[in-house]
Amino acid sequence: MGNCIVPYCDGPKSTNVRFTLPAVCFVWQSAMIILFGVFVRYDEESDPYWVEFKAKKNITSDSENDFYYRYPSFQDVHVMIFVGFGFLMTFLKRYGFGAVGFNFIIAAFGLQWALLMQGWFHFLDPVDGYIKIGIENLINADFCVAGCLIAYGAVLGKVSPVQVMVLTLFGITLFAVEEFIIISLLHAKDAGGSMVIHAFGGYYGLAISWVLYRPNLKDSSQRNGSVYHSDLFAMIGTLFLWMYWPSFNSAISDHGDGQHRAAINTYLSLAATVLTTFAISSLFQKHGKLDMVHIQNSTLAGGVAVGTAAEFMLMPYGSLIVGFFCGVISTLGYIYISPYLEKRFKIQDTCGIHNLHAMPGVIGGIVGAITAAAATEPVYGKEGLINTFDFTDSFKNRTPAVQGGFQAAAMCVAVCFGIGGGIFVGLILRMPIWGSMADDNCFEDEVYWEVPEEDEPVPPVLEYNNHMATNKNVTESHFTVEQS
Amino acid sequence: MGNCIVPYCDGPKSTNVRFTLPAVCFVWQSAMIILFGVFVRYDEESDPYWVEFKAKKNITSDSENDFYYRYPSFQDVHVMIFVGFGFLMTFLKRYGFGAVGFNFIIAAFGLQWALLMQGWFHFLDPVDGYIKIGIENLINADFCVAGCLIAYGAVLGKVSPVQVMVLTLFGITLFAVEEFIIISLLHAKDAGGSMVIHAFGGYYGLAISWVLYRPNLKDSSQRNGSVYHSDLFAMIGTLFLWMYWPSFNSAISDHGDGQHRAAINTYLSLAATVLTTFAISSLFQKHGKLDMVHIQNSTLAGGVAVGTAAEFMLMPYGSLIVGFFCGVISTLGYIYISPYLEKRFKIQDTCGIHNLHAMPGVIGGIVGAITAAAATEPVYGKEGLINTFDFTDSFKNRTPAVQGGFQAAAMCVAVCFGIGGGIFVGLILRMPIWGSMADDNCFEDEVYWEVPEEDEPVPPVLEYNNHMATNKNVTESHFTVEQS
Amino acid sequence: MGNCIVPYCDGPKSTNVRFTLPAVCFVWQSAMIILFGVFVRYDEESDPYWVEFKAKKNITSDSENDFYYRYPSFQDVHVMIFVGFGFLMTFLKRYGFGAVGFNFIIAAFGLQWALLMQGWFHFLDPVDGYIKIGIENLINADFCVAGCLIAYGAVLGKVSPVQVMVLTLFGITLFAVEEFIIISLLHAKDAGGSMVIHAFGGYYGLAISWVLYRPNLKDSSQRNGSVYHSDLFAMIGTLFLWMYWPSFNSAISDHGDGQHRAAINTYLSLAATVLTTFAISSLFQKHGKLDMVHIQNSTLAGGVAVGTAAEFMLMPYGSLIVGFFCGVISTLGYIYISPYLEKRFKIQDTCGIHNLHAMPGVIGGIVGAITAAAATEPVYGKEGLINTFDFTDSFKNRTPAVQGGFQAAAMCVAVCFGIGGGIFVGLILRMPIWGSMADDNCFEDEVYWEVPEEDEPVPPVLEYNNHMATNKNVTESHFTVEQS
Repeated sequence: MGNCIVPYCDGPKSTNVRFTLPAVCFVWQSAMIILFGVFVRYDEESDPYWVEFKAKKNITSDSENDFYYRYPSFQDVHVMIFVGFGFLMTFLKRYGFGAVGFNFIIAAFGLQWALLMQGWFHFLDPVDGYIKIGIENLINADFCVAGCLIAYGAVLGKVSPVQVMVLTLFGITLFAVEEFIIISLLHAKDAGGSMVIHAFGGYYGLAISWVLYRPNLKDSSQRNGSVYHSDLFAMIGTLFLWMYWPSFNSAISDHGDGQHRAAINTYLSLAATVLTTFAISSLFQKHGKLDMVHIQNSTLAGGVAVGTAAEFMLMPYGSLIVGFFCGVISTLGYIYISPYLEKRFKIQDTCGIHNLHAMPGVIGGIVGAITAAAATEPVYGKEGLINTFDFTDSFKNRTPAVQGGFQAAAMCVAVCFGIGGGIFVGLILRMPIWGSMADDNCFEDEVYWEVPEEDEPVPPVLEYNNHMATNKNVTESHFTVEQS
Repeated sequence: MGNCIVPYCDGPKSTNVRFTLPAVCFVWQSAMIILFGVFVRYDEESDPYWVEFKAKKNITSDSENDFYYRYPSFQDVHVMIFVGFGFLMTFLKRYGFGAVGFNFIIAAFGLQWALLMQGWFHFLDPVDGYIKIGIENLINADFCVAGCLIAYGAVLGKVSPVQVMVLTLFGITLFAVEEFIIISLLHAKDAGGSMVIHAFGGYYGLAISWVLYRPNLKDSSQRNGSVYHSDLFAMIGTLFLWMYWPSFNSAISDHGDGQHRAAINTYLSLAATVLTTFAISSLFQKHGKLDMVHIQNSTLAGGVAVGTAAEFMLMPYGSLIVGFFCGVISTLGYIYISPYLEKRFKIQDTCGIHNLHAMPGVIGGIVGAITAAAATEPVYGKEGLINTFDFTDSFKNRTPAVQGGFQAAAMCVAVCFGIGGGIFVGLILRMPIWGSMADDNCFEDEVYWEVPEEDEPVPPVLEYNNHMATNKNVTESHFTVEQS
Repeated sequence: MGNCIVPYCDGPKSTNVRFTLPAVCFVWQSAMIILFGVFVRYDEESDPYWVEFKAKKNITSDSENDFYYRYPSFQDVHVMIFVGFGFLMTFLKRYGFGAVGFNFIIAAFGLQWALLMQGWFHFLDPVDGYIKIGIENLINADFCVAGCLIAYGAVLGKVSPVQVMVLTLFGITLFAVEEFIIISLLHAKDAGGSMVIHAFGGYYGLAISWVLYRPNLKDSSQRNGSVYHSDLFAMIGTLFLWMYWPSFNSAISDHGDGQHRAAINTYLSLAATVLTTFAISSLFQKHGKLDMVHIQNSTLAGGVAVGTAAEFMLMPYGSLIVGFFCGVISTLGYIYISPYLEKRFKIQDTCGIHNLHAMPGVIGGIVGAITAAAATEPVYGKEGLINTFDFTDSFKNRTPAVQGGFQAAAMCVAVCFGIGGGIFVGLILRMPIWGSMADDNCFEDEVYWEVPEEDEPVPPVLEYNNHMATNKNVTESHFTVEQS
């Protein structure tokens, strides 16, 4: 919009991030280089000493390198993070660049920071003090990033890129602490991260959105919606999330049956969710018409809710039941709960993450706790029970019932970290230094992006040229476009 | 379309699916839960008893779990089903939601039903009577669903979501019976499903479309075409189908050389198809311009036609020959055969599945029969011949020539099931209870979807705001848009 | 545009490819069939004699078939070639068909020709004289094609499909020779092809573009830009390239630690690039607004630049440093160098491949040379050093320092082949027989494609119908559209 006389960014609320954004990017990226230099090295499977390591451990084949087990799932998760989350948020008519672009930078920064944070908590080599990274760390970093991307969904279109970076910095940090408490201290299992990722990320985002409440957001309401093609772009995100969710829930499971079972359970739960989402979407609309918002989002709720229990003996029908109810609850959430939360609690949740992540995440935690508490040796086998719940070392004497209790405790930790952390970070983000936009300029890419000028029909130049050759009688409208 | 006075759905032909669609979804999904509860369990590779199973079978490494062999291919096939088929059908200017959305529900319901149907025919555990599922079943279910999605292509834009569900219910059932006859009884090989999936699915859809003939479909002809961006969305589908087709044709092959060879053959056939498709598309258009319909569809025909013989010793040049001719035939099909079928046989084939699936599927069956009949021990090796054609147990004495005969018979079975089943299901779908639309409302998402209101250029609000600050002389047109 | 009186293609510069394009496609595809028939067979891992081969080599498990190691990476690379490169180039408002369509035919033809060319140089069986192909060849063919697709980026929108085929024919040939010199003769390592693919492809394209200089290209400048949705389509390409780049750089590494390490290094380098790209993009624009051109392209430069050294002990922080600087340099390239090259050197580079491929490729070659020269036994281990640099057979006595010298020499070979080959091919492409368009018709799909007629808002037909029933007062504009 080069011909603006009064530049947009010089109004009472400056959205010019020309110095803050580059400063944050350069300083933080430089810090990453230094911290990686001091702390991070390759693990033994990605180190040239692998030859010696193999010999020592009596590994005969390179196919035993974790890389070959986990790389395909890693890439699926990677696609979910960048294309899945990125395009799912492109549904807004004028916020596609911000959706996919800020999603990109959150993820790119977040995964570096996550490698460090998770490394410090989980992967420090006791001998030399280095964080040793391999394929499993890359997957975990993607998981960690997912929590922040979920939170971004709640504030989509209402924050500046600098705020987004701050949200990520603290989000990753909180995640790493929360994960350490849940996985290492409580020894809870959470294969697909229903609690660790979705419940935490969901409440983190909702709390931030609550603190950043915008009273006059209705002034931007004409852009808080979709157009035909933006809904199709969003479906790209939906489908890649939906298809690869079995990889997500099984990516860091132990090799063998647990990983296999996690994929099957997730596949089935997601399938059931689709049918009940369509059903509720049609049932609650006048004339029975389907709503793309539900199809784009609620169809995924089954994957969230089956996350914790995916490795367990949930049974195929159990997965279908979980998916069935999550489709119903999530869609009803979009119809009833989101408007209520906005009106009553002043929580403005752009993507409806409460219905797709927070609520299903809590359900997933509960399902996980029940399934764990109900585990028995006849169902799992003696070794299978130990393998599945990792009842080894200092947790050797834990029983399924006790495990169920710790699973429930873990869920509370996730929710508390989400809400508490979100309020804290929200307050930081309220400082007027981050270049946020005014309430009437939300959901608009032009605030932070160079947007191509026109959206009018492109003039059919060739035809025009041909007409020119034979016939001077060209329509006025074409001329107007050409000359502009 | 909130301001319609006369609601669309109250016309002489009601398209209101507010009760039928939810009813079908809820009842069928509940039935799935019950049937899965009664019949379906994890197989030994996805069961915690895997530890014991491994020990018993002397398996030393978890990498021998079928999951690691098949999961990457499974995910590729999964992407083809949901993104490939879904986006390929988004080419219509006003039917993107229906394309990708109804594709989604067909697949989500179909794969559950397929797990049961295929399970009953192929995977019943003789000891305890349960269907034991693992990664191979998930792939097979995706294959089964592919048949119905192909059929959906023929009736795209002309059926209600309830009809789509009925089409799927019967389609999966017919598929399972047909597959049992072809694979188990006739012992025909069909790695990529040229016969089982494409010929069956193609003729099933064409027969349904023939029974559901709409005499006044020309009243919807203004929407039976693409716009610029819808053609690009469709190319997403085309490319994911094209790229992952080697996975499709090799996904359920036996481990080792057969799977490897199937991928190579498919890759080569598809490459050749692209060149001849471009050639014919340009040659048969005035001024030599290329037609996106051909590029989107006919480039895939080589993958279909190489399906049956993909595992066989088709040889690299043989694959290229198959691809060469299929590109030609399929593109000519779009130019000449489809209009002829519509005019002469009253078969309205929205996506041209006759050219992409039915015809190439039959060609694939013939190529398979010939390649099988021509198999010799010098080419395959003694063990290789037995492995490739599975000449074991009760088929120990079968010769390649006899196998060729059974392959040909299998193709006839597939075509007959397709046509017969399609006519039967078509008659069911003609009942006036399914909420189908009138002939002049076809290819229109608004019938079953809440569609965002505008498609006009989005008002550049920021510039508008800036103008407002400095200059009251804003163009009228912007105002109009803002206020609407 | 059926209603043109004077057909577009009959102007002074004929763009009618109705005979040349089909002729090229048919003749070349037929030649492929003959050459494959004479030269190409399955390798031992994709041949039914695999059973005997396994026994002979004492391979106990089918999972040792290279197919299972390499297929997932192969598919990722395949997606980069077709969807990544294809959609990355859809950013132009009126050249989406040409971007994704011509990318398709380049790749489909190129990979067949590459299988032959690379086969003759690298994979000829000394016993029977056949080229034996398997999964590794398919990956290499995709790599080879990548060089031509990069070159296509420089001339995007300015060449005819026939020129594109010629560019590919020579590009693949030059690539195969250059690769043979670099990999086999100089014994340089280039896992991700920074030199072999990116530097060569980049300079090849730039040299062609230089020879094909169009003095009046400004007459097409109104189409040499993006619209809102075309930028989102391009982001699909960007993200799939970005996500799968670790597969690209590790796809043909030796099994084990090298492959694992290459993926990690690429992942980290790319992450760092994103942050510095955002930083520079914002810093150098008025008002700090981000530019989609930079986000779409420069974020990938880190993957290019880490290609050669990806297998080496670059260290995690080293990868971040490479990514950091490439993001900066590439973005500055788009801002300053590209306009300068166009103005001063008359190099019109549509996609800015100089900034994304040529420059980062050279940087990658330098980084690789330095890292190789700096390799020491304590860091790699005795066997690790030999494995990583393949210091075996006739290269047994090579030292890291010497290797570094050969790496540097390799880079010069790549650049020289690119520039020299590009000038040669550019001169061929200047012949007036290829159906190229005039300067004022560049960047326009209509020249070679049937483009759907309208881009105006689609009439909301249902509402219109309803209105008709109750109220005859329909807006004129709707009528106009309906009747057209």
